[in-house]
Amino acid sequence: MTAYTATVTVRLKGGVLDPEAETTKQALERLGFELEDLRSADRFEVDLEADDAGAAEAQATEMADRLLANPTIHDYDVEVTEA
Amino acid sequence: MTAYTATVTVRLKGGVLDPEAETTKQALERLGFELEDLRSADRFEVDLEADDAGAAEAQATEMADRLLANPTIHDYDVEVTEA
Repeated sequence: MTAYTATVTVRLKGGVLDPEAETTKQALERLGFELEDLRSADRFEVDLEADDAGAAEAQATEMADRLLANPTIHDYDVEVTEA
Repeated sequence: MTAYTATVTVRLKGGVLDPEAETTKQALERLGFELEDLRSADRFEVDLEADDAGAAEAQATEMADRLLANPTIHDYDVEVTEA
């Protein structure tokens, strides 16, 4: 077994309203910044042991499917690096 | 001016308690997953116009310093890609 870190990035699907990002964008504009758009996402870094990188990615993908992401409103991607 | 996307990742400094991550880790363990550790972070993707990648990174760094991150408890990193 090898130690891996799987990074799961969970973002809202296109078209889903994101009031937190909108508020953050407006606050930056009030501070004088000019920006076209701002999107927010959640990032989970999971340390786990697995036989190989493929197995680590499969485990992290199952975690995203079952808990970390809500498939109705979220997309996610998984990236695995050796720890 | 060129369009860039700056990705600002804001994470808690080592030693700062993260009850959300702890709760998520426990929920995954209750589902039967085995994991060593889990850290959560916020990720902001900012679309902005700048003269070059260096200027875009400087702007995003100032956004992090002034609003997106709290220097008492957070570390952050900034990554810039051409949009």
